[in-house]
Amino acid sequence: MRTTLCDRLGIEYPVFGFTPSEHVAAAISRAGGLGVLGCVRFNDPEELDRVLDWMDDNTGGRPYGVDVVMPAAVPAEGSAGDLGELIPAEHRAFVERTLAELGVPELPDGAAERGGVLGWLHSVARSHVDVALNHRIALIANALGSPPVDVIERAHAHDVPVAALAGRVDHAMRHVDNGVDLVVSQGYEAGGHTGEIASMVLLPEIVDAVGERAPVLAAGGIGSGRQAAAALALGASGVWMGSFWLATEEYRRGMAEASAMQDALVAARSADTVRTRIYTGKPARLLRTRWTEAWSAPDAPAPLPMPLQNLLVAEAHQRISAAGDPSVVSMPVGQIVGRMDRVRPVADIMGELVADFASTVDRLGTLR
Amino acid sequence: MRTTLCDRLGIEYPVFGFTPSEHVAAAISRAGGLGVLGCVRFNDPEELDRVLDWMDDNTGGRPYGVDVVMPAAVPAEGSAGDLGELIPAEHRAFVERTLAELGVPELPDGAAERGGVLGWLHSVARSHVDVALNHRIALIANALGSPPVDVIERAHAHDVPVAALAGRVDHAMRHVDNGVDLVVSQGYEAGGHTGEIASMVLLPEIVDAVGERAPVLAAGGIGSGRQAAAALALGASGVWMGSFWLATEEYRRGMAEASAMQDALVAARSADTVRTRIYTGKPARLLRTRWTEAWSAPDAPAPLPMPLQNLLVAEAHQRISAAGDPSVVSMPVGQIVGRMDRVRPVADIMGELVADFASTVDRLGTLR
Repeated sequence: MRTTLCDRLGIEYPVFGFTPSEHVAAAISRAGGLGVLGCVRFNDPEELDRVLDWMDDNTGGRPYGVDVVMPAAVPAEGSAGDLGELIPAEHRAFVERTLAELGVPELPDGAAERGGVLGWLHSVARSHVDVALNHRIALIANALGSPPVDVIERAHAHDVPVAALAGRVDHAMRHVDNGVDLVVSQGYEAGGHTGEIASMVLLPEIVDAVGERAPVLAAGGIGSGRQAAAALALGASGVWMGSFWLATEEYRRGMAEASAMQDALVAARSADTVRTRIYTGKPARLLRTRWTEAWSAPDAPAPLPMPLQNLLVAEAHQRISAAGDPSVVSMPVGQIVGRMDRVRPVADIMGELVADFASTVDRLGTLR
Repeated sequence: MRTTLCDRLGIEYPVFGFTPSEHVAAAISRAGGLGVLGCVRFNDPEELDRVLDWMDDNTGGRPYGVDVVMPAAVPAEGSAGDLGELIPAEHRAFVERTLAELGVPELPDGAAERGGVLGWLHSVARSHVDVALNHRIALIANALGSPPVDVIERAHAHDVPVAALAGRVDHAMRHVDNGVDLVVSQGYEAGGHTGEIASMVLLPEIVDAVGERAPVLAAGGIGSGRQAAAALALGASGVWMGSFWLATEEYRRGMAEASAMQDALVAARSADTVRTRIYTGKPARLLRTRWTEAWSAPDAPAPLPMPLQNLLVAEAHQRISAAGDPSVVSMPVGQIVGRMDRVRPVADIMGELVADFASTVDRLGTLR
């Protein structure tokens, strides 16, 4: 499995692995793909700096990337405290009542409250870029469209290419107009923030529209070599996988609370996801659990806009993680969750994907 | 482009074309695929009989199939008049008011009202099967899951294989348990009645679950050879296309009112569809127009269950067709509508698809 992106980025396989875990990201890079570390959870830039030091030392000299979250429209800025005053009491009461009804305990005394993820803020995302450019990163990806043009230009000044996710053709065209180097076509079936057009339709549309201006990666529904072959048949130059790495042994390292989440993912089928605004305020696909069902009940309030919704549910997410109940998980994941049937090492997933890709291409050759 | 289905069904390419038009169905069969005529519009079995006589004479001796609509759960039976009494006055008033607001004229005096499509009724669908089995059909497909087992057995007694559409793995398993010979994996992106799982995920899931018990066709998002290659990479033995044939010259024959509809489809992008219950009472993907938008307004009533909703909007559909306004079309179509950029002969579409499939497979071979 080789495309022009392999030489360009110095990777063995055009498999881009997005993950919030440095252990997973490093393992993806060591296995021949490009591990892309999600930065949104780092409220403190110094913590990101330490983690990227670790990445520099633990990727066996292979390239890796980072993923920041900069919405195209600059959202409200402010500290968690300032923004918190914008959250209606009705919403806070609903969250408290729902957690009680779902049997999610309070946090133990002394448990630090992280105060919500601020990585959605432009200022915080910019600090992520500043930190990352001091490391040997091979890619900056933006999960919410084009980063500001000056950020793209700074990355280019460091010889770092920029990728941006697109759920529609017009988004993709805006990205390349802004100087983005790699477009990630993110289909409806993907986990996290995602649009309404499925990969089978969206990917070749974006490939045709972008043409020679940028290679396109396929995101949404990829978890096997057959799916990677389908993506390359549709014109992708590589695949972008996120959900699939959640069911890995590496994901558990340094994440003691991952066990219930992995149990829930392994048990889930492809129909067990829901696209909802309750995670961040923008439509994102999550695992369907008792938590997401509570938010779709008739008495539930409408989710708040970004970044307020994530601040609203930040402590709830902490409590849910600590509770360790697979039926109350709050986790972004794509429809590919139906294929995540066991927890494996990253290298096993990569090895199987590459072998399956080769046999799929051979099989297709016989149908020519 | 050849799979085992070609020899089994006596077709040149494993391209199954669903269409309500006998002119399109015959052209698909003549072009080397399998034209599958939708029967749901035939309230009168004798009219279907005459049209199948025409198919027998105009397919150049090539095989063709029929598509009936038998819901798995038997819906209410009765004449249009009896059923009409179950429609609330509020719904009738909304339809009248909406058509007036959209500028859709009344039908001219003397225009026959067809009284709604009754093909959704089990009794009518059974009459379609009775008629079709007296013709040289090569396939009976059911758009809404497994037909009753006795219908499958009657088809088999005539050496006619049966296909059934599935939007989830459990549906597919029920079909093969019931004796269905071909499973059509219908992804979220498809037009008409469709589920929530996208083809990229659904298709390989169904292929794996069904195994050797039945070949699987890919429906949803197919309109090019690249997409056909992706489908075969994912394990399909052929493709099932519906929407794409709506933008053909053959579709206009005998359908004077098709012009506004085709104008609307050619102008639409992939984002211009909506999945709604307003067409039949079950979720179906339609072109987004001022008609579908009116039904999603806050003052719109909830759609009625099948078969009442279709009876409710039957005359509205007639008036809309007669009005010839592309902005008020009521038309099932998939997200592939974004690729339908001109009206062409069926044979051109087939030729381009087959050539594009071959070049895609060749290109993939170089990425091995």
